[in-house]
Amino acid sequence: MPAGEKNYDPNFTQHVIDTCGPNTSPRMKQVFGAAMRALHNFAREIDLTPEEWLAGVQFFNETGKIWAESEGKRNEMHRLSDITGLESLVTEIANYVQTDDPNYSPTSAAILGPFWSPNAPWRELGDSIIQDPHEGTVTYMHGIIRDLKTQKPIPNVTFDMWQASSNGKYDFQDFPNQSDNNLRGKYKTDENGEYRLYCLRPTAYSLPQDGPSWKLLQALDRHPMRPAHIHLKVTHDDYKPVVTQIYPKDDPWLSTDTVFAVKDDLVVDFVPIKEIPASMSEHKGPGGKATKELQLDIVLAPKGMAAHSGPKL
Amino acid sequence: MPAGEKNYDPNFTQHVIDTCGPNTSPRMKQVFGAAMRALHNFAREIDLTPEEWLAGVQFFNETGKIWAESEGKRNEMHRLSDITGLESLVTEIANYVQTDDPNYSPTSAAILGPFWSPNAPWRELGDSIIQDPHEGTVTYMHGIIRDLKTQKPIPNVTFDMWQASSNGKYDFQDFPNQSDNNLRGKYKTDENGEYRLYCLRPTAYSLPQDGPSWKLLQALDRHPMRPAHIHLKVTHDDYKPVVTQIYPKDDPWLSTDTVFAVKDDLVVDFVPIKEIPASMSEHKGPGGKATKELQLDIVLAPKGMAAHSGPKL
Repeated sequence: MPAGEKNYDPNFTQHVIDTCGPNTSPRMKQVFGAAMRALHNFAREIDLTPEEWLAGVQFFNETGKIWAESEGKRNEMHRLSDITGLESLVTEIANYVQTDDPNYSPTSAAILGPFWSPNAPWRELGDSIIQDPHEGTVTYMHGIIRDLKTQKPIPNVTFDMWQASSNGKYDFQDFPNQSDNNLRGKYKTDENGEYRLYCLRPTAYSLPQDGPSWKLLQALDRHPMRPAHIHLKVTHDDYKPVVTQIYPKDDPWLSTDTVFAVKDDLVVDFVPIKEIPASMSEHKGPGGKATKELQLDIVLAPKGMAAHSGPKL
Repeated sequence: MPAGEKNYDPNFTQHVIDTCGPNTSPRMKQVFGAAMRALHNFAREIDLTPEEWLAGVQFFNETGKIWAESEGKRNEMHRLSDITGLESLVTEIANYVQTDDPNYSPTSAAILGPFWSPNAPWRELGDSIIQDPHEGTVTYMHGIIRDLKTQKPIPNVTFDMWQASSNGKYDFQDFPNQSDNNLRGKYKTDENGEYRLYCLRPTAYSLPQDGPSWKLLQALDRHPMRPAHIHLKVTHDDYKPVVTQIYPKDDPWLSTDTVFAVKDDLVVDFVPIKEIPASMSEHKGPGGKATKELQLDIVLAPKGMAAHSGPKL
């Protein structure tokens, strides 16, 4: 039934908003006003029933309960905002740039997700992030980080990356099978703006098949799969950071990623390896020699270029 | 900044909705679609920042945590939906009747709230619901339950009522000061459709001044007060139930009720008592004789009259 067909009290929502006192911050008032209009219009549009509302209260309670009982280790509320596209949308908003320049295209952002670690170790260029045995494909990954404006390589960029192992689990989800910081590492680009390292060709994995997010996915007849991906956080003091993910182009879940994080320029090609450059030694860690290669250049926008930054609460 | 000014991906929300599979129930798909449009439009309208989104995730987690840690006794998620007007709106929607008859006006509904008990004792007409000492005003309350269509009194109606004590607390919030079922009771109307009993003139009270709801109220510079009220749940097999609340007309919080449950026809007048009818004996329980009187008639709509009922999930 279309919204507005019924004569619900037309003043109700504004009345709720108007109870805000004079000491509400302008941003809080803006957020609360928009939230109330969205919430109330939603309820009126679909004639939300008392049973559905109570089911919603219960659903959110169960979602918070998992966070409480896991002592913060399992954040289903965060996951819920991922499978509804909210984190991806917030990422788009935060990285939005209004410009008329058709050449203005730094590497696209994608969601950080819950598995980044502030404790990833620094590694030397050419080193591997693979510490533990796996069933994946060792990959030689390399590329140049460039300045959007000058197209010149940028030395001394922090290239922070992390990925799940071939079983679809990150190190701290998989104790004691994986050691701390397996498949994580931070590198600095060299004087030519280049990074080079060994990692795994990533593996697609499922979100947990229990808990509130899984319950919602089932009710929506949706699959719980994330396409295979590698996480990147590329930073330099003089540039806007790029937090993103890359995806192999032949992954079957690209168009229906359960957290909606795929963008066209983030889809990459893992090719059979040709040769390892002189600056690298052969991979000697778990999995042996590399059989795939990925070349990935990254483009960073200098700070101060026409930029969008959201207002603060 | 007005919505729509930025060129955010115009297909994103529809893409999220379109991931629903063919086995989603029609109602689920309707609810999810409306929820996604509301959520995403909200985020775009205010340029929701990553910090604000994470603060929101954390806020809902903390809200659910209280429910988990209190083993379901303290439902802050329910309270949150009350102070944002959602329960009151859902009550309006559930009780909405589309009719052209200007005389169609059963007694208005108001939210059930979290303090109704299925275990309230049956009491005899004329009895008091006051079991324990208090500092309130004993009130003789009575009235007739009528049929909306015929205006005739309805015998054998269940008149279920509950109220907080003069300290603003309900029995199960106030152990061991209050005994079980203090200020709760169920009555049956007599052959003249009348109920009569003793209760307290109700007292305004504050929502808890800790926890997430209180945090939100403070951020909105709002007071936490509910106007004084008595809860009613009036039911009969042949009529639509009326779940409602009544409020003394001189209460200072009527127009800014923190849960937005006040409606004009629910505001009543507690007057000095004139005389107790022959069918009542004087109040002998805690607080002594009644000094106030409240006459409150209730109008019930027969089942089957032009009625609205929300679709089921």
